[in-house]
Amino acid sequence: MSDHWHEECGIFGVFGHSEAANLTYLGMYALQHRGQESAGIACSDGKVVTFHKEMGLVADVFSEEILSRLAGSSAIGHVRYSTMGVSELKDAQPLVVDFEEGSISIVNNGSIVNAYELKRELEAAGSVFQSSMDTEIIIHLIARSRKEQIEDRIVEALKQARGAYSILFLTRDKLIAVRDPHGIRPMALGRLKGSVGGTVICSETCALDLIEAEFLREVEPGEMVVVSSQGVETYKPFMPAADRFCIFEHIYFARPDSVIGGRSIYQARKELGRQLAREHPVDADIVIPIPDSGVPAALGYSEQSGIPFEMGLIRNHYVGRTFIEPQQSIRHFGVKVKLNATRDVLSGKRVVVVDDSIVRGTTGRKIIKMIRAVGAKEIHVRISSPPTCYPCFYGIDTPSRRDLIAATHTLKEINTYLTSDTLGYLSVEGLHACVPQDRSYCDACFTENYAIPLGVERTGEQLNLFRKSINICSPGDRSARRGRGE
Amino acid sequence: MSDHWHEECGIFGVFGHSEAANLTYLGMYALQHRGQESAGIACSDGKVVTFHKEMGLVADVFSEEILSRLAGSSAIGHVRYSTMGVSELKDAQPLVVDFEEGSISIVNNGSIVNAYELKRELEAAGSVFQSSMDTEIIIHLIARSRKEQIEDRIVEALKQARGAYSILFLTRDKLIAVRDPHGIRPMALGRLKGSVGGTVICSETCALDLIEAEFLREVEPGEMVVVSSQGVETYKPFMPAADRFCIFEHIYFARPDSVIGGRSIYQARKELGRQLAREHPVDADIVIPIPDSGVPAALGYSEQSGIPFEMGLIRNHYVGRTFIEPQQSIRHFGVKVKLNATRDVLSGKRVVVVDDSIVRGTTGRKIIKMIRAVGAKEIHVRISSPPTCYPCFYGIDTPSRRDLIAATHTLKEINTYLTSDTLGYLSVEGLHACVPQDRSYCDACFTENYAIPLGVERTGEQLNLFRKSINICSPGDRSARRGRGE
Amino acid sequence: MSDHWHEECGIFGVFGHSEAANLTYLGMYALQHRGQESAGIACSDGKVVTFHKEMGLVADVFSEEILSRLAGSSAIGHVRYSTMGVSELKDAQPLVVDFEEGSISIVNNGSIVNAYELKRELEAAGSVFQSSMDTEIIIHLIARSRKEQIEDRIVEALKQARGAYSILFLTRDKLIAVRDPHGIRPMALGRLKGSVGGTVICSETCALDLIEAEFLREVEPGEMVVVSSQGVETYKPFMPAADRFCIFEHIYFARPDSVIGGRSIYQARKELGRQLAREHPVDADIVIPIPDSGVPAALGYSEQSGIPFEMGLIRNHYVGRTFIEPQQSIRHFGVKVKLNATRDVLSGKRVVVVDDSIVRGTTGRKIIKMIRAVGAKEIHVRISSPPTCYPCFYGIDTPSRRDLIAATHTLKEINTYLTSDTLGYLSVEGLHACVPQDRSYCDACFTENYAIPLGVERTGEQLNLFRKSINICSPGDRSARRGRGE
Amino acid sequence: MSDHWHEECGIFGVFGHSEAANLTYLGMYALQHRGQESAGIACSDGKVVTFHKEMGLVADVFSEEILSRLAGSSAIGHVRYSTMGVSELKDAQPLVVDFEEGSISIVNNGSIVNAYELKRELEAAGSVFQSSMDTEIIIHLIARSRKEQIEDRIVEALKQARGAYSILFLTRDKLIAVRDPHGIRPMALGRLKGSVGGTVICSETCALDLIEAEFLREVEPGEMVVVSSQGVETYKPFMPAADRFCIFEHIYFARPDSVIGGRSIYQARKELGRQLAREHPVDADIVIPIPDSGVPAALGYSEQSGIPFEMGLIRNHYVGRTFIEPQQSIRHFGVKVKLNATRDVLSGKRVVVVDDSIVRGTTGRKIIKMIRAVGAKEIHVRISSPPTCYPCFYGIDTPSRRDLIAATHTLKEINTYLTSDTLGYLSVEGLHACVPQDRSYCDACFTENYAIPLGVERTGEQLNLFRKSINICSPGDRSARRGRGE
Repeated sequence: MSDHWHEECGIFGVFGHSEAANLTYLGMYALQHRGQESAGIACSDGKVVTFHKEMGLVADVFSEEILSRLAGSSAIGHVRYSTMGVSELKDAQPLVVDFEEGSISIVNNGSIVNAYELKRELEAAGSVFQSSMDTEIIIHLIARSRKEQIEDRIVEALKQARGAYSILFLTRDKLIAVRDPHGIRPMALGRLKGSVGGTVICSETCALDLIEAEFLREVEPGEMVVVSSQGVETYKPFMPAADRFCIFEHIYFARPDSVIGGRSIYQARKELGRQLAREHPVDADIVIPIPDSGVPAALGYSEQSGIPFEMGLIRNHYVGRTFIEPQQSIRHFGVKVKLNATRDVLSGKRVVVVDDSIVRGTTGRKIIKMIRAVGAKEIHVRISSPPTCYPCFYGIDTPSRRDLIAATHTLKEINTYLTSDTLGYLSVEGLHACVPQDRSYCDACFTENYAIPLGVERTGEQLNLFRKSINICSPGDRSARRGRGE
Repeated sequence: MSDHWHEECGIFGVFGHSEAANLTYLGMYALQHRGQESAGIACSDGKVVTFHKEMGLVADVFSEEILSRLAGSSAIGHVRYSTMGVSELKDAQPLVVDFEEGSISIVNNGSIVNAYELKRELEAAGSVFQSSMDTEIIIHLIARSRKEQIEDRIVEALKQARGAYSILFLTRDKLIAVRDPHGIRPMALGRLKGSVGGTVICSETCALDLIEAEFLREVEPGEMVVVSSQGVETYKPFMPAADRFCIFEHIYFARPDSVIGGRSIYQARKELGRQLAREHPVDADIVIPIPDSGVPAALGYSEQSGIPFEMGLIRNHYVGRTFIEPQQSIRHFGVKVKLNATRDVLSGKRVVVVDDSIVRGTTGRKIIKMIRAVGAKEIHVRISSPPTCYPCFYGIDTPSRRDLIAATHTLKEINTYLTSDTLGYLSVEGLHACVPQDRSYCDACFTENYAIPLGVERTGEQLNLFRKSINICSPGDRSARRGRGE
Repeated sequence: MSDHWHEECGIFGVFGHSEAANLTYLGMYALQHRGQESAGIACSDGKVVTFHKEMGLVADVFSEEILSRLAGSSAIGHVRYSTMGVSELKDAQPLVVDFEEGSISIVNNGSIVNAYELKRELEAAGSVFQSSMDTEIIIHLIARSRKEQIEDRIVEALKQARGAYSILFLTRDKLIAVRDPHGIRPMALGRLKGSVGGTVICSETCALDLIEAEFLREVEPGEMVVVSSQGVETYKPFMPAADRFCIFEHIYFARPDSVIGGRSIYQARKELGRQLAREHPVDADIVIPIPDSGVPAALGYSEQSGIPFEMGLIRNHYVGRTFIEPQQSIRHFGVKVKLNATRDVLSGKRVVVVDDSIVRGTTGRKIIKMIRAVGAKEIHVRISSPPTCYPCFYGIDTPSRRDLIAATHTLKEINTYLTSDTLGYLSVEGLHACVPQDRSYCDACFTENYAIPLGVERTGEQLNLFRKSINICSPGDRSARRGRGE
Repeated sequence: MSDHWHEECGIFGVFGHSEAANLTYLGMYALQHRGQESAGIACSDGKVVTFHKEMGLVADVFSEEILSRLAGSSAIGHVRYSTMGVSELKDAQPLVVDFEEGSISIVNNGSIVNAYELKRELEAAGSVFQSSMDTEIIIHLIARSRKEQIEDRIVEALKQARGAYSILFLTRDKLIAVRDPHGIRPMALGRLKGSVGGTVICSETCALDLIEAEFLREVEPGEMVVVSSQGVETYKPFMPAADRFCIFEHIYFARPDSVIGGRSIYQARKELGRQLAREHPVDADIVIPIPDSGVPAALGYSEQSGIPFEMGLIRNHYVGRTFIEPQQSIRHFGVKVKLNATRDVLSGKRVVVVDDSIVRGTTGRKIIKMIRAVGAKEIHVRISSPPTCYPCFYGIDTPSRRDLIAATHTLKEINTYLTSDTLGYLSVEGLHACVPQDRSYCDACFTENYAIPLGVERTGEQLNLFRKSINICSPGDRSARRGRGE
């Protein structure tokens, strides 16, 4: 409850608009929820690629002056939340390199599961690595391809990579988007309105809305979109594979106003709340969300159950900044810094508390105690997703299994730990019934049914280890880590 | 709609706790919504007063290291939103001075209406001023008093000042709180739990909640509370006056989880929404708030009217930081940077949009156009307060009358400007019916019924002018101004 | 040797030039050696006074953008090296206040010896103090004067103050300079060349040189210069007193290229070196200076003695910045970070080492050991000033007597401590013979012959104590203290 | 005159000392004159390599806290002055990469002349480049070598590279130094004193002096020194080549207290001054240097000629920081900000002005006009090196030929441009006679006799161009460029 898994990345690209860098800046701002640790933009004016990246939030990294130096009519941008404990400038994207055919820049949302083997092979062939990004591996594969066309090089490279990826490449004169054959991470295609026009490809439709671009369609699983002065071309170069869209995008990752599968995430979340009410009804006085992510599901639960919806927890709007709790303090204030329980809303009430998921349970326990402390009579926790028992290897920052409370405890034990009166999780079947039916989903975090097999002999934890052979303190490390602004 | 008047200040003081500075820091963090431009703390260890103040948010101004240097068991703190166009370090509080009896520090939430006359008189008697703060005038009056006791000096000084004030004074060995006889701005008294104990006096109860202090009661209008090692003493040194508590604290300024008049602000705002539904019913499909401040009233409206509540506008959680829109941009994105309208919630719907107030109307107009653009069929604006027609001179940052749309336009004209289908404001009577009945209120911003008469020959604008004779560019001026984090 | 007393302040003012702030910025840059801890400029455009001050060096405090906001054709500026251990923004100058007659700004180089009594009297009359600056006392005296003309108020105020001062006042329409009757600190009057013209008054002529202003003459002891649109007027409002110009300006404080008493400081210092050679000849192979301040005296010594001059010590040009020696280091590198001894210049040589003064002797001892370590056969220390035995109360940052090695040790003991072979100080008579003969001097630091009597019952140390009743941590405190860039 | 060519880099490495990072920090501080734009350290604790690099001066880039995170007993460090117009973080060193055998870090002082060809070949073989550093090419060559031992890989890589290089490699357990066969850039070997011991290899002996390490000998041209727990081994793996040490290190680049060829640079420069006096005597009253770099040669000139030495130009000790001249200023102050001419030293005198070199001549012209303006009767310019007519391709930042005044003008024309009375350059023969005779020299900047042939078809300018295909704005770009602190 309210400590969340984190999306690793958001991507944005634009081609054919004189204000490419400004639009990318705005698009990344709309995608900030997908990554808060670093931000970067690469721009091409048809001849020279210019870029800037730094640790920090989009609004802090880019000034008017820096944007004005990013010249050209095509650009790609990236926001990042690292999977590792330490985030570092060297791992910020875009990655911009020179290779045989000139400059190429890349941004990626996803994760390559055979990265370890590929890196080993490339090193054996004489490649050197300056970061721990999967994305650097893809660049090496492209550089080593003997194909002539950049599109063919990209395809040859990605055929060797197994995993989840939604990638944008920027060359001198092209913007190329590729989504992995399973379509694990989202990717939307849009068109700028007005006479200037321009093509936009990005993680979520909320970025299109901000810049007033028209949403055309999602980039399809396994599709490659090539945008150039010749127009927009599309290819399906990969072996077709089963749709396995990340179902957690519907539960938590995507922004409520984004549209996926023809429906807003907000509506999907309300439906999850309704289903939750059907599966886990309870006799109670009020339904309250954990703000803000639990709001749509709580509204759905309220609608279905007829129990009134209230904002029983008020959040401090300034949390999410660099608040440092005094360490010498005699108390640990924890979640109170973010949320406060309103006594006269909760006192004497039987309360349904709705949230989207539980990771460790520690924050949830504190919230329940806080609600109890202002006089709630009963507390019924309802979670609008199934228990999260398995880590994700496809681009999400998840703790190891032993830290997932649902992986190591029974429902009853979790309820006891949370100090709630009752606890109800949504069923896997219920979950699938609420999301758009136009595709199938990866739900491995609930079912261990991984879309893409991992290497036989290596676990995700081992994967992380090998990435850390270089421990780089780059400038940005000094900046405090900032949480998601909720 | 969603461009607001701004509270000028929040204050916090603690006496008798070894972690006085840390507690003050946390308390100011909870009061951050009352002022975002500067923050300061003064501390006394019984011998020496130490202080730190800077432009910026509480979490940015204070580091662990700075807090550790603020030694002592009593402290006062201040957050500020300037009334002037330019905010300056010289006007940040606490104001700390040496005078005949030693050091005295002061923080204030309020405004002195006869500041101009008092400053003139003091200057004629040889006083010099280093800031444009009213508060500096009070310090001079105290220093010039011939009384022996500091309490008597304070009373003598404040008897000369007319206006709204909730002041905390910190001397070497006392914390003294004074609230003006009309009790215009709020002030709460609390006690720290646990064996260490300690007394807390602050603007709102939400600050008590965060540090887990018990809320005892409000400081009464005209009351002086003196906290020392002798305990807590209380006085009523001023001529009794009519209660005139700021009714706008209930509408917008205070935090929803704060308790005033025995009830949470959240409940008062829901009641305003219910009353609004009674006064201005409409046949519609959904009720949506302007997030976040319009949420409680929209819930109340929904409850009373039976029309379903939806979150039709999604806000970007990262707004409120230093986002700079690229100036050379071909479009102005304005409110879209903060809010996005969810098409499948709003399309084809008759929508009731609830907000707490309208200042200029420019933002509201943009929001309504955004809702219309995603297909809303009808848009009915409902405001949970009466039209704001008159500026406030008691500690609120209000534009001049000509910029208040309700001061210069009829209801019909405002509706036309907003491009809404219908528009309804709460009545003054309705407003008074919804707020706690244990006191009377200042509602001059709606009625021109000012609690305290202004100088005959001077308007508020003239008042502002004289304050600006020194135009200081202090260090903090370079930091970008940050809006309220909504 | 090479740990020095520090000048407290440099001042600069200009009247009647459209680029007043820019010229002041440049002038302060030239006077940076007189104070490195804070810098500030106040500007008047005839109506409004604007100012900016911050902790730090001139070049760091002022940006193009800040300078552009300092509008008007008259300005004053200040650089400061605090006398107290902690330097604070609240004590930075200019001090800008509103008083009965409008705004007045002040910068001062000097120190008031009866500050304690005056502050007491002013506080008893109801004045409040926001800083520990003497200068704030002067402003209060001016504000309390019942005279009508600002010039008369200034004279009345300064007649009550005993001490050293070279002050510039800036009002809306006048620049007023006053130098104390003894003329302890320097003050030069110049005229800008070119058709625009303009009058400049500043601490040293090197500031005039930089902005290509013509040096007219020194402001005389006890003189008041009033610059307005009416031209430049001069007054002698004070009781005449004996000239007591600070002789240490010739020895170390002033820049070598400044002219005082009709001769460059460089020539005076060379003459001190020649006299030193006459008083303390020695049979040696080379003369080396402690760079850079010892260079002119070493050249003089070499010239007089015929012993060749060499640069045996090479200094690191990047010292003086914020170099922090790693604390966990096993060694303390001390002066080696600043200076390195050149082995093949010094090895096997009998070396005369010339410096201008010795304060504690600790640095000198390290330098001598360093010279010995590269093989010098004999080391003869020659100091171009008499032993400094008494603290200065007239605007110089001096340690207490017990830290002055010459105050507590015999010549022989100092020589032993330094580990030099011989040690020679210039005589007081020799010193007086070398400086311009057009005036008499204050040499109290050598002779205890104080120009102005201190209060009977208070020592300088007590004076410092009372100033510290407010212990303010202002923003600048966090910036590391920077030494003089030598 | 006093606008100089710039050394590109300084390097420092230490092996076998528990405070490796601290010692490297100090060593880089001593080598700061060799590069002021970026600084970096990489450290190995035998298992993990940690590093930090940033734009800025050593003292600004490294804090106590960052140093404490750089753990291990071996380290390498680098200071850099870019050859390109824009300096960028991506080109800062050390370069740290993962390759087949683990991590390797590299710092280099020098330049590879066949970089363009090598990069082309590597790209054709599939390598990607993330910077414009020559050094990245060397790393690729090492990674692609099929040798087993890292030493053999390094040799194989460097055999393909033609140019000047003094390189340090840091692996998990070794520090490896290589100097190019011509020995163009300097490299010194030292041993830490004390029981802890440790080996140091660095650009100049002044870095050894600061950390109190003993100077053992120079690393020889073509030598490879391998330092490990097995001790210090030495190899000569390259084809022997003629000594071609950079003669300009003696004229300007190296610090005066460094020892090269058994003698201090200071002594060499004095000898250049003496030879200059022999070749270009003149009847004059005083000899003055352009401080500080001209001082030793001026002393030599004075000694040989018997004309008295004076410091006629005084420099502002605070120059070299980020001084920004106000752009809207009516005057350009230029060199006056750095230097001031002392009237009573120069007035009426026949002055010999000594400097080490002339690049464009623009600064020299201003200095001569300044000297003339204070009344000098005659000005005789004497340069302690021959005319610089050809750019350097071996690690020095030189302008293109058309900007070298001596490349495009006769001696007479230069004299006219400078407005001097006479002008004398040292002869090439004279220069060679003054420097240590134990080696031969590269003097291509005077003679076009390049030590290493450049590519047939490419000039240095073309070389620069190809490096700029990626135009990166990395974080450090915003920091103002700082000049050498003179």
